[in-house]
Amino acid sequence: MSISVLGMSVSLDGFIAGPDDFLGGDDGQRLHSWFTRDGGFVPPTGPAGGLVAEWAAAGAVVTGRRTAELMDHWGGDHGGAPIFVVSHRPPGPAARWGYPDVHYLTGVADAMKQAKAAAGDRHVEVRGGYIGARAIEAGVLDEIQIHQVPVLLGRGRRLFEELSAPVELDIVRVIDTPDATHIRYRVRR
Amino acid sequence: MSISVLGMSVSLDGFIAGPDDFLGGDDGQRLHSWFTRDGGFVPPTGPAGGLVAEWAAAGAVVTGRRTAELMDHWGGDHGGAPIFVVSHRPPGPAARWGYPDVHYLTGVADAMKQAKAAAGDRHVEVRGGYIGARAIEAGVLDEIQIHQVPVLLGRGRRLFEELSAPVELDIVRVIDTPDATHIRYRVRR
Repeated sequence: MSISVLGMSVSLDGFIAGPDDFLGGDDGQRLHSWFTRDGGFVPPTGPAGGLVAEWAAAGAVVTGRRTAELMDHWGGDHGGAPIFVVSHRPPGPAARWGYPDVHYLTGVADAMKQAKAAAGDRHVEVRGGYIGARAIEAGVLDEIQIHQVPVLLGRGRRLFEELSAPVELDIVRVIDTPDATHIRYRVRR
Repeated sequence: MSISVLGMSVSLDGFIAGPDDFLGGDDGQRLHSWFTRDGGFVPPTGPAGGLVAEWAAAGAVVTGRRTAELMDHWGGDHGGAPIFVVSHRPPGPAARWGYPDVHYLTGVADAMKQAKAAAGDRHVEVRGGYIGARAIEAGVLDEIQIHQVPVLLGRGRRLFEELSAPVELDIVRVIDTPDATHIRYRVRR
C-alpha cells in the first residue's frame, strides 16, 4: 500500500522560502544547503544519507501548479515517476501536449487516489506547502518529512499559512545532524 | 559567565499559542502537554527529564511585559530569581510597590546586562516570543531551547512574527522523545 509523504526544508522560524517567490533567492537556497553546494546537488553523507534515496524511490508525485510550473514540470516526469498536478485551470501548452506523464486534476483527493494507484508499492512524494496543507485538510496526507534547518530567515513564505483545524502527529523518526534536524511525522486520523 | 536562553514550546507549524491570547485556551495548552497533565505540572521522565532542572537553575529572568502581567509576575520572583521586565511604560501597582525582585527597564540590552550580573554563573531564562525576537535582534540572546511538539495547530501566534535580518544557529543538542523533539540552538554571532 502506497503512502503519501510531504517533504519540506524549513527554517526554525517556520519559513520554506524567502519573501519574493519560490525558493526566494538567497534566503530560500539556505534551506537546501544540507543537500547542495555552490548551487549543485551534493547528497549528504552519514545518518542523513538515506533521505535522498527515499526521494528517488517515489512512485508518483502530487504537486501544486505553482511548484510544477516553476520546476518546468521536472521535464515531464519526476525521475521516471508520473506527476499529478492539482489546479482548477487547464494545463498550459507544455503539460498539455508535451508530457504524457503529467496529469492535471482539479481536486487533491482525486489526484492522490490516482497517484497512489500509479505508485503501486512505492510512496507518493507531495511537493509544495500549499498543496500539502490542502492534502492534510482533505485527510489524504500520511506523513510529513521535515528538514529543520538551523537558521532564522526572519521573513518569507510559511510552511502552512493556516489550516482549518488542528491535526495531531506522531513522531516516527528523528535524524540528528549538524546541518539539519530531520523529523518524520505520521499524520494521525 | 552567564548565558541567556529563550525556551519555547512550538507546534510544527510554528505557533506558540492559540489565536486568542497567551496560551490561547485549548490550543495553546496542547503545547505544554509534554510537562503537564490535567492542568498540573508533571515533569517528564526519561531523556527530557533534565530540561525541567535546567529551568529551575535560572539565576534571573528577562521577560516581556505581556508575559509578566499574564503570569502575575510569578508572584514577585521566578523560583527565587529576580525578574527583569522590558517595557516602555512604567510598572503597574503590584510590580511597583509589592515586588522588590521585579525590575522594569525600557531596553532589552540593558535588561539582559542587569539580569546577567544578577545571575552570576547561572543562566538567564528569557520568557516570551516577542522579547526573544528583540533580544536576538539586539545581539543579546545566546541560546534557544525549542520544544517542538508533534501537532499542527493551524493558526495562532507565531514563534517570531518577523526578524530584521537572518540569523544563523548551531545545533547544540537534540533530545528525541515521543512527546516532543527538544532542540537546543546556539545563536551565531
